[in-house]
Parts: sequence; C-alpha cells; structure tokens
Amino acid sequence: MMGGDFGPEVTVKGLNHALDQLDNVHANLFGNENEIHKVLKKYPSLEKKLTIFHTENYVPMDAKPADAIRRIGKDSSMWMSIASCANNESDVVLSAGNTGALMALSKLILKTVDGIERPAITALWPNPKGNSVVLDLGANIDVSPNQLIQFGIMGYAYAICVLKKENPKIAILNIGHEEIKGSNNLQEANDKLNNIFNDNFIGFVEGDDLSKGTADVIITDGFTGNVALKTAEGIAKLIAFYLTDSLKSSLTGKLGMFIAQNSLKSLKDKIDPRGNNGGFFLGLNGLVVKSHGGTDFLGFSNAIQFSVNLARSDVSKKISDLIEENI
Amino acid sequence: MMGGDFGPEVTVKGLNHALDQLDNVHANLFGNENEIHKVLKKYPSLEKKLTIFHTENYVPMDAKPADAIRRIGKDSSMWMSIASCANNESDVVLSAGNTGALMALSKLILKTVDGIERPAITALWPNPKGNSVVLDLGANIDVSPNQLIQFGIMGYAYAICVLKKENPKIAILNIGHEEIKGSNNLQEANDKLNNIFNDNFIGFVEGDDLSKGTADVIITDGFTGNVALKTAEGIAKLIAFYLTDSLKSSLTGKLGMFIAQNSLKSLKDKIDPRGNNGGFFLGLNGLVVKSHGGTDFLGFSNAIQFSVNLARSDVSKKISDLIEENI
Repeated sequence: MMGGDFGPEVTVKGLNHALDQLDNVHANLFGNENEIHKVLKKYPSLEKKLTIFHTENYVPMDAKPADAIRRIGKDSSMWMSIASCANNESDVVLSAGNTGALMALSKLILKTVDGIERPAITALWPNPKGNSVVLDLGANIDVSPNQLIQFGIMGYAYAICVLKKENPKIAILNIGHEEIKGSNNLQEANDKLNNIFNDNFIGFVEGDDLSKGTADVIITDGFTGNVALKTAEGIAKLIAFYLTDSLKSSLTGKLGMFIAQNSLKSLKDKIDPRGNNGGFFLGLNGLVVKSHGGTDFLGFSNAIQFSVNLARSDVSKKISDLIEENI
Repeated sequence: MMGGDFGPEVTVKGLNHALDQLDNVHANLFGNENEIHKVLKKYPSLEKKLTIFHTENYVPMDAKPADAIRRIGKDSSMWMSIASCANNESDVVLSAGNTGALMALSKLILKTVDGIERPAITALWPNPKGNSVVLDLGANIDVSPNQLIQFGIMGYAYAICVLKKENPKIAILNIGHEEIKGSNNLQEANDKLNNIFNDNFIGFVEGDDLSKGTADVIITDGFTGNVALKTAEGIAKLIAFYLTDSLKSSLTGKLGMFIAQNSLKSLKDKIDPRGNNGGFFLGLNGLVVKSHGGTDFLGFSNAIQFSVNLARSDVSKKISDLIEENI
C-alpha cells in the first residue's frame, strides 16, 4: 500500500474502484495502518473486503535491491506481502513500489519454478488486433539460449491461459527476419524453439513487428526489451506533443480539435499507459504484478483487475507442465 | 541509380527535385544508361549537371553482402559508385539500395579511418527541440568499450560539423541512469568517455531519452540501436492507425479531421520518415549515405540534399583530429 509516488492516497482509492467491479476478491493490505485508515474512512463499504497487516517499515522508491534484502528487513510491507504469497495466504502480489527491489525480494522469497533459471519481467504490447506478450523487459541483461526458450514457454503459457489465444505464435526479437541474423545465442534459441513449438514458432521478427501483432509472444533479452519499451513510450509522448502542437498552431486546428474532442479522447485512452498498467513477473512460484509508480487510482485499479485475472488463470500450472514436457 | 524499390523512376526524379534547389552540385550517376535516359528525358535541364557511368550490373535488393563482394563483381553500379568516392571523383555516395551490401562494399573499398575499428550506421532522431545523432543502428551487433568511444567521437564530430551544435552532449543508451546499470562494457565505456569529454559526456540515458533531446549524441551497439529504431517506426505507425481510426469512428471525429486537415497534414509531415530519410555511415575514408529503399522522389531528394550538406562539412577531418587527440 505504501508504493508508488502517492502511497495509500492512490492505492486505497484504486482498490475501492476495482473491488466495486470484482466479486469474491479479498484484499490483504500491507503497510502503515494509520495512513491506510486515513484514506480508507472515505470508503466504509471497503472495510469488510480487506485485512490490514500493519508495518511501519517499507522499501523506499530509490532503495537498492540489495538493501531491500539485507538492510531494510523482513518487516517491510513489500517483504511481508511477498511472504504472504509464499505462504499461500495471498494468490497474487501487486506493488507500485521499487521494481528492482520487488524483483529481488520476489526471487529470494518465492524462488523460481523448477526448470526456470530466472524470472522475466513481462508486459502486454498493443497492436491493431489486440496485444502481444513481450518478455524480458529488464530483469536479465544477458540471456542464454536456454533462458530464451524458458521465456518462450512462459509467454506461450500466458498467451493461452490469460489472453485465451488458442494457437499463439512465438517469435524472437532480432535485427532481421533471416535465419543468419543476430548473435549465436539467438540462432541457437531459434533452432531449439523451432524443435519445441514447430508451427507455433515463427522465427525472428524486428522492432516494428512488436506493434504489428506479427507474433503473440515476442521474446528478447532484458536489455533490448527494456530499451524497446522505453523507446516506445518516448515516441508516443513525442507524437502526442507533435499532435497537440500541430493542432494548436492554427485556428482551424483548434476548431477541429474541439469538434473531434471525443475521438481524440478515445485516442488518448488507447495510448494511455494506465490501460496496460505495468508488467508482471513470470517464472516464480507465485504471481507478482508491478504497477507503474506514477499511476493514478484508475491505473492502479486496472492493475488490480489484471492481477485478479492472472490469479484466476492456471498460467503457473501451464508453465510447469510445459517445462516438464519440453526441458 | 538502380537502388530502392523503384530504381531510376524515383532516383532521377528526386535528383531533378534536389538539383533545382542546390547550386554547384555535379552528379555522377551509376547504373543502366538506357533506363536512366528513359526518365531523364523528362528533365532536359538536368543533363548538364550530371555524368552517367554506364553499367548493366547491379546489386539486387535481396543479395547477401558477401555476394556483393565476391560474386556480383566490380562493375556493379554500387561498387563503381563507392570506388569513385575512393578515387576522389565523388565527394559522397548516396544509395537507396541493399543496406548490408552497401556497408560491406563501403568497408572493403573505402576502409575505415585510422583509429576507427568499424564504421557505424548513424541517423538523426527527432525530439521537440530538433534532432539527436544516434549510432550504431545495425552495423555492429557486439561492440567493445573502445568501439563505443569511437562512436562517441564520430557522433560528437557530426553534431559539431553538420548539426552545428556548439557544445554537444554525449550519452550512452542503457536501461537506467545510475552508474551501476548495464554490462561491464557499458560501464568501462562510461568511465573512458567521461575522461575524454568531461562535461560534454552526461553518462547513461534510457530509451525514452532518445525522443526527449536529453543528449545530442546517443551511442549504443548496433543490435539495440536497430531494435530501438524499428520499434519507434512501428509505434509511429500504430499511433497513426489509432488516430485515423478514432477520428473516422464518429461524425464529429470526421468533421474535426476535415476542419483540422492542414494541422494533421503538418503532423504527418513531421513524423514522415522521408524528412529524415535514412542513415549514413560514419568512420570510413569517404562519406556514404543510405536512403530508404521504399522512399519516393521527395524522400530521395531530401537524401541528396542531406548528402551534399554532409560533403560540404568537415566532419571527416574532425573525426581524424579527435581520434589523434584522444585515442
């Protein structure tokens, strides 16, 4: 509850908004009871849907991951929330806090699924037809061919179990479609994924394929994925700036903008990062979702609904099954 | 003249458009004289500004780089044009042809500048304040710290000599701003560039900084740079799709689009890839510019004007001077 740029102000309001729309969800809240109650008293009907686990300790947004493990201690709200997932007291953990610390604590407390070397930060990437799953987005700078295969398996399980795609196609992000492109690691992963997934593996795709829906699952190392994601965010902001700038620079532009305001609002909603809020960690013995720190209550509410959807899927079992069959 | 998706149809028309606006430029055209003449006869005033070097041999758009060197031979229009630059008969080479072949032949024929291990594909990246220089965009999958330093020097020279920036700032693309982020290679390059450029080196930037103008020169390995560039192109297309889709989905949207059509046209021009058409190769003993293969005559004309501007700068001398002073 203490994470993000605004703490309980946003997390409690977002929780109220989400639980208004969800049945049979109980929330375990970790954080400072006094601060949570200050916001909670605005939403009296919420009280019976939640349990508060009080702690005054929390992981600051700028803390180093190692400090979250060694210095800040087991009574931080982040640690306690992940531990509750490890103890099967919670089905999914959601945090708007420090991403590096969340990943480090998740790995330490939940451990990875047997057969998965390291978890991957995963997110949905929009295209004209819907969304693709992209991983890794920053947890693993260097990856081996085997890790890329594990990413493929995790993304495939997610596409089937959560996105409900019947026949998902997997691809590797590269700098060309040809088989000879890219590093030896990519080529080895290409061969192995081809053997495992046959027609469900379509080989190499390029950066622009991320937004085209060429594949349902696109796998990459965390360095490339992170740069691609942030590049996309930067370009979206630049184009929004150009659009406003172009429209405001003339009277007809301003008039057109006024008349088309509903359409432009719908565009804004579509490229609004709150719609696909944040990422999730795949490959752990437990589900962990990371909301953007700077999000408002609507974005946090979306992240809660996303988390519930994830917890109600059988993605974890599917990953284990696929690992057993193929690795 | 034979390169790109349309050959002389576009290259000759683009040449006519560019030379209408440029003084004291003479064009050496390499390609099939008959095909060039077919288009050229529409522009009789152009004849005196050019020399045609006839050859029937050319590098197909899908040829492998190795074939451009070994199989296709020295009488391809691409080989001949680069050789004319090596012989000081041309000051800059422009091609809309096969990028891999152009890079391979350029390296073979022109060789790299002393102190530069490998050339880099370089391009301009737009931001609200103007453009940044980004390199490498695909020539070098793996780069050493020393190569990154060479990229820094080349980009800095370009920013000063061509973009006329007085005090360009250099940055390394990474997945975080903190000094501890990224691979050992990036950290070593970070330290060395800091020693060479002092206040002109601002350290690590992230993907969204590409579009913010945080730095004038952003350096990266060719794999990451290529993915970032293509991701940006993909997102720009996706947003254009969303914009049209949103506006066309309602009557007020359509009306607003009609009224604001000039503003929307100016937006389209701003995100039009023909404005910053293609890339250029830095680090060779000669200047080589690559136009997009799919461009039309306006894009090719922009690429010609860009090439002339490059040839009239002293970027090559500046690179050599900086190498001598710092390496």
